[in-house]
Amino acid sequence: MRAFVMNGIGETGFAEKDRPEPGPTDAILRPTKALVCTSDVHTVHGAIGERENLTLGHEVVGTVDEVGDSVTDFAPGDRVVVGAITPDWGSAAAQDGHPSQSGAALGGWKFANEKDGVFAEYVHVNEADANLAPIPESVTDEEAAYVTDMMSTGFMGAEHADIPVGGTVAVFAQGPVGLMATKGADLQGAGRIFAVETVQSRQDLAKQYGADEIVDFAEGDPVEQIRERTDGEGVDAAIEALGSSETLEQCVAAVKPGGTVSNVGYHGEGEYVNLPREDWGVGMAEKDIVTGLCPGGRLRLERLLALIDSGRVDPTPMTTHEFAFENTDEAFELMESKEDGVIKPLITFE
Amino acid sequence: MRAFVMNGIGETGFAEKDRPEPGPTDAILRPTKALVCTSDVHTVHGAIGERENLTLGHEVVGTVDEVGDSVTDFAPGDRVVVGAITPDWGSAAAQDGHPSQSGAALGGWKFANEKDGVFAEYVHVNEADANLAPIPESVTDEEAAYVTDMMSTGFMGAEHADIPVGGTVAVFAQGPVGLMATKGADLQGAGRIFAVETVQSRQDLAKQYGADEIVDFAEGDPVEQIRERTDGEGVDAAIEALGSSETLEQCVAAVKPGGTVSNVGYHGEGEYVNLPREDWGVGMAEKDIVTGLCPGGRLRLERLLALIDSGRVDPTPMTTHEFAFENTDEAFELMESKEDGVIKPLITFE
Amino acid sequence: MRAFVMNGIGETGFAEKDRPEPGPTDAILRPTKALVCTSDVHTVHGAIGERENLTLGHEVVGTVDEVGDSVTDFAPGDRVVVGAITPDWGSAAAQDGHPSQSGAALGGWKFANEKDGVFAEYVHVNEADANLAPIPESVTDEEAAYVTDMMSTGFMGAEHADIPVGGTVAVFAQGPVGLMATKGADLQGAGRIFAVETVQSRQDLAKQYGADEIVDFAEGDPVEQIRERTDGEGVDAAIEALGSSETLEQCVAAVKPGGTVSNVGYHGEGEYVNLPREDWGVGMAEKDIVTGLCPGGRLRLERLLALIDSGRVDPTPMTTHEFAFENTDEAFELMESKEDGVIKPLITFE
Amino acid sequence: MRAFVMNGIGETGFAEKDRPEPGPTDAILRPTKALVCTSDVHTVHGAIGERENLTLGHEVVGTVDEVGDSVTDFAPGDRVVVGAITPDWGSAAAQDGHPSQSGAALGGWKFANEKDGVFAEYVHVNEADANLAPIPESVTDEEAAYVTDMMSTGFMGAEHADIPVGGTVAVFAQGPVGLMATKGADLQGAGRIFAVETVQSRQDLAKQYGADEIVDFAEGDPVEQIRERTDGEGVDAAIEALGSSETLEQCVAAVKPGGTVSNVGYHGEGEYVNLPREDWGVGMAEKDIVTGLCPGGRLRLERLLALIDSGRVDPTPMTTHEFAFENTDEAFELMESKEDGVIKPLITFE
Repeated sequence: MRAFVMNGIGETGFAEKDRPEPGPTDAILRPTKALVCTSDVHTVHGAIGERENLTLGHEVVGTVDEVGDSVTDFAPGDRVVVGAITPDWGSAAAQDGHPSQSGAALGGWKFANEKDGVFAEYVHVNEADANLAPIPESVTDEEAAYVTDMMSTGFMGAEHADIPVGGTVAVFAQGPVGLMATKGADLQGAGRIFAVETVQSRQDLAKQYGADEIVDFAEGDPVEQIRERTDGEGVDAAIEALGSSETLEQCVAAVKPGGTVSNVGYHGEGEYVNLPREDWGVGMAEKDIVTGLCPGGRLRLERLLALIDSGRVDPTPMTTHEFAFENTDEAFELMESKEDGVIKPLITFE
Repeated sequence: MRAFVMNGIGETGFAEKDRPEPGPTDAILRPTKALVCTSDVHTVHGAIGERENLTLGHEVVGTVDEVGDSVTDFAPGDRVVVGAITPDWGSAAAQDGHPSQSGAALGGWKFANEKDGVFAEYVHVNEADANLAPIPESVTDEEAAYVTDMMSTGFMGAEHADIPVGGTVAVFAQGPVGLMATKGADLQGAGRIFAVETVQSRQDLAKQYGADEIVDFAEGDPVEQIRERTDGEGVDAAIEALGSSETLEQCVAAVKPGGTVSNVGYHGEGEYVNLPREDWGVGMAEKDIVTGLCPGGRLRLERLLALIDSGRVDPTPMTTHEFAFENTDEAFELMESKEDGVIKPLITFE
Repeated sequence: MRAFVMNGIGETGFAEKDRPEPGPTDAILRPTKALVCTSDVHTVHGAIGERENLTLGHEVVGTVDEVGDSVTDFAPGDRVVVGAITPDWGSAAAQDGHPSQSGAALGGWKFANEKDGVFAEYVHVNEADANLAPIPESVTDEEAAYVTDMMSTGFMGAEHADIPVGGTVAVFAQGPVGLMATKGADLQGAGRIFAVETVQSRQDLAKQYGADEIVDFAEGDPVEQIRERTDGEGVDAAIEALGSSETLEQCVAAVKPGGTVSNVGYHGEGEYVNLPREDWGVGMAEKDIVTGLCPGGRLRLERLLALIDSGRVDPTPMTTHEFAFENTDEAFELMESKEDGVIKPLITFE
Repeated sequence: MRAFVMNGIGETGFAEKDRPEPGPTDAILRPTKALVCTSDVHTVHGAIGERENLTLGHEVVGTVDEVGDSVTDFAPGDRVVVGAITPDWGSAAAQDGHPSQSGAALGGWKFANEKDGVFAEYVHVNEADANLAPIPESVTDEEAAYVTDMMSTGFMGAEHADIPVGGTVAVFAQGPVGLMATKGADLQGAGRIFAVETVQSRQDLAKQYGADEIVDFAEGDPVEQIRERTDGEGVDAAIEALGSSETLEQCVAAVKPGGTVSNVGYHGEGEYVNLPREDWGVGMAEKDIVTGLCPGGRLRLERLLALIDSGRVDPTPMTTHEFAFENTDEAFELMESKEDGVIKPLITFE
């Protein structure tokens, strides 16, 4: 089968591989739609180290092609979505309420990390009964592709932010995860959402997803702007959706004492991420910092699909570009260059 | 001053009273708008026992007329709203995170219970700095009147229900509190909301406030209907917004194992409220029962006002009738009879 | 192999059965020690309906005899303990944080319910890697047998009770689960623990496990006694460890507004469990009722073993009687009669 | 009256001051015992900036000398303790569940910060009904002095650490707050507590307060030692009780994915407190960082006193030195030098 792979740091291309085989609890998926993620780009740039012939991609929708002997809930032909994170549900971390950390830090992240990813003609899914979800008829494949990571991760950012009903929230950066964090804050009952962003098209989408006000950091320090608009108080919660120390520092500064900083950004650089000592209240201002990795699992996927099914969330405005599978290299380059106003490139398998 | 009072069980009428005086931390409010609540009717019917010359009403908006010496944040002329519940913020219960229970069970409920209520030309407010909130310019007095109780109580019902993002919720009864519980479930990120109600106009409002499906109990056992529509599973959360043992039993039966029953109804009758032993999973199915009394306090009020201010909530469709203060008796009778499709009668002070 | 079974309601006896076979993720255990539980008695009396040739028992320790092909963490000869509850960790309920409810209400309870129990020469364990735990050298088999249910269930009662550090707790009934709830309250930082019990030997054990004061219900209404000793306030938390409506009512009455009632008792009788309407604060006093079924899983077992290993908990004073496996019928009769001051009978396999 | 004051950075001495007067809700306390705290030393060294004629000290026990007109629960002659933190209970932060942040970051900290402290013949207490607690007869003044800060702060460190029953905890630094965090972890049901400390006398006290194992950082990297003793896994929770970036980094590294870092240390130096990017799991390993300031309030104090009253906690082994009030300067110098094995110096007023 054909797969789009990483061949060492900085190198990508197509390769021929054997179709994977399912173990007793696994399934093999035949993709129909996939999305390219910025973390695929990070991976190729070396974020998780040197890798050879590793199939890329972790956001995918498709049909079941084959299931292992112990799989009871799915059968070939079923239209399904699989989470970007596919935990080992019996692991100690999962028993402890942290399935995304199963086996190790970030251990639930298997696609294009521990094993081949989803930019391929066939995809291997572990613990299929627990990690696949059927797609309701009313939900399209494209829509469903967004629950794998963007909606699950972005909404998690808002869930972790402990937003009081009617509370104030600032979401730092409005890429696809930030946009879904903005929508997530709206779904958590926020009363006033500040979207920190300077790109016009992303500002527009942020408003569409529930932002009440834009904080354009090109027009001045975003923390100062947020403080000014909140009578000097700061916000109840701030969500870091970029992955830089500077942005996390701004989040810490932007929340009021007793507020929560929710990190969803992947911090890919530097030895340290810094907490600004004074703005952090010398470690005593009850500004907690909560982190997480995209929740996976059938139940999570089904609940996110219900939000699409009921019309509460439409993720498709984030699809800015479309490519056939054989042009995944172009989709990938676009994601790398961040040109042409790209938010998410959609891949279609024939 | 003129006040609309309870004169013993079953008796109401207007009376002349002295204008109240503020203590050092108190304020005197001059009402502009008020709403009649079903619990006022319960009170007159004897729910809290015999009372003489007790001014009724607890949902009010107005202007500050006078403040005590220690009040720092408000001044005469300020347009403000006061919560139906006005806790003693230094009490042990408030320190314990239960301000509505300050001093005793339901002890934060002072208006028309421990002291005179708000259907009067002047209203006494305890701990004014903590229990009043300024009203934003963009919010009308009528809108603001809904944050005192209906929005605060109904939303609490949803907050207590521990609704997962995209989860399923059933809200039992769509009176004004139930409608706000429905909206509250929507604001908590529910993916599918069942509104249990048989009256057409309330069903219509429920849909307007976020209900995805109506469960009409005139068409069969609501629990059976909910189970059928959820593949036999039941819902993640059920909200009791009526105050009857039968409805609570249905809530217990309607939630799945691990689900939450959130009670907001006032249970006014009978020696016991019953838990159905088997549907409750013999006390081991992790079907928790959470209860609460309307949260008060300035911060809560401000956050609820922000939801109106930002356009997320419009409570005014619940205003079905309007009366001048001198006709409060008619408003009260209407609320008692529940005729003419009444949901909330609005009182206007000249 | 030999097994002690239920043969219809009210009938028990020994039977010969085939040794169970492991599926790919299962293990077969050879018991060394087991404990008899009152719920075994309930089962024989018909609590879960008619059963034929069902091996009884669910509290067991032993050595691994055989493992399935996919089991990675255990091998024949390992000294292990298995939880009374053995969840399906990939189930929707487990993904939702309720593993004991996997598949159905109480669905994690498989031993002597969905399948044969542990009073047999060989025992089948599902998802062995997730449901077995190795026993530290310093912990005896007898001690380890208590983590399967008594410690896990009793401590859960205290964990669910949301006990503030230094808070007041009343534990209703001091059978083995109640005693462990008392110890659990002590481990949660309670400042004052009332043990409600009338039997002298249980009162003595309760004190040994951390009770500060005994409330003897033979000497008067326990709720009145608790109120008197708390200046009329009631307690922060009450734990129901008997399983009767009357006791649950007392718990509701004994907690202060804002307090928590934690149910661990199995409610085996009657159509309803009753909440006393007024003492429950008409559904508005923030007296929540939390329920649960014994948590299982390797992580839980390991943590409970750590409490024994570190000397914090010694469960063996609860062993009042010992029997050889071939006399399990006598142990069972003793548990049924509750004579001779029995708390827990220990079964030894040769 | 006589007071021990700060006279600019680095300067301390005795001064004559006017006795404070109570407002309507305040009380005046006449101290009997007080404790010197390392944060008093930080203050004198400039941690909160330049101050002139500021009475030092915030841990005190005494008798009520006078109360304001609105105080209802206390009267002259009552033996009472006042929290180091005396919140404004009606403030927005307190309504939001963060009373220690009332009015501003760390705003509940008034003694020797916003107003005169407690090393004086008379002490002013705001909101007396909410911030004083009566001392049970069985509790000595010396014992009670420890609930004001050391027990409240240290136990908070453990409460924030979200310790599972039987879980593993590492407490970094065994000064008086660290010792109480160790005891707090024990009171939260930890199964295995590592106390990180190199001073023998503090190691001994740590064991007395519940530590199972000592990690002596003079014998090697404490993180490596903790990982080795936990099979490479790390601990469920780590408590920072020193206030240095290096220690916080170690806490982040020592916890397993999904674990919690609870900060109680005052971070007094540097522009940043650093999170080690990789050990922090690139912001995705669910290693949350929780912070707090000593909880105050009557209810908290009463609950901590109950732990002493019931014999669960004996703080007096931390009293290493005793001084008369007129020698507070010597006590202060000792705390500054940290010589002679000092943990807490006790001040006695005649």
